[in-house]
Amino acid sequence: MGKRRLHHINFVVRDLDAAIARYENELGLGPFETVDHGPRGSHIARARVGETWFVLVSPYDPASVPGRHLAAHGEGFFLLSFGVDDFDESLARQPEAGPVRDGILDWRIADIGNWFGAELQLTDDRQ
Amino acid sequence: MGKRRLHHINFVVRDLDAAIARYENELGLGPFETVDHGPRGSHIARARVGETWFVLVSPYDPASVPGRHLAAHGEGFFLLSFGVDDFDESLARQPEAGPVRDGILDWRIADIGNWFGAELQLTDDRQ
Repeated sequence: MGKRRLHHINFVVRDLDAAIARYENELGLGPFETVDHGPRGSHIARARVGETWFVLVSPYDPASVPGRHLAAHGEGFFLLSFGVDDFDESLARQPEAGPVRDGILDWRIADIGNWFGAELQLTDDRQ
Repeated sequence: MGKRRLHHINFVVRDLDAAIARYENELGLGPFETVDHGPRGSHIARARVGETWFVLVSPYDPASVPGRHLAAHGEGFFLLSFGVDDFDESLARQPEAGPVRDGILDWRIADIGNWFGAELQLTDDRQ
């Protein structure tokens, strides 16, 4: 199999501005860039931490996937996405994989289900 | 502030062998190395994924911190540890920081509390 890295890790938060401020001021992450991601009904902020995107997801639509996650589990870990440089081949190996869809910006992603309590995802990481 | 990366991310699992097998065989992670980490009452497996250690924690002591986490929350995300190259300075900025302690192998770590539903930690990342 191909090369792997942690492409992004997402946390659901209620107050995006408060979370960004704390991560920037107290931990030295950032700067964060913020986008409105309609398909997920959420405002999303991301900052690069080494080779991984650290992502904060704040749902404004309670019926969205992140909104339902927040209602069911509260704030905290939402998903981990592995960057794979053999995306199609890796995806074909996942029986629980959902459809390929567009993430924020140009990310091409597919959810691969809940593994031992953790929602996992693949991101197309071909350079 | 100094340089940051994701040093390790920990997931609590019940069956360590089953989790290792799935991550290796279906996702191409690994090889995992396994240690018995007495201070946490757990068997721990880690594999390098890019610049981050992907860590599976399987508690055998229900009174340990990971054991209590498993009982309270079930399997899944346990903690995220940021590698910082200004460890003492970064730690001094954390009002909720616990004591500096030894992680597996030579990791020097300190928990910094629960941020927006996620347990966070710093790892001394001076090279």
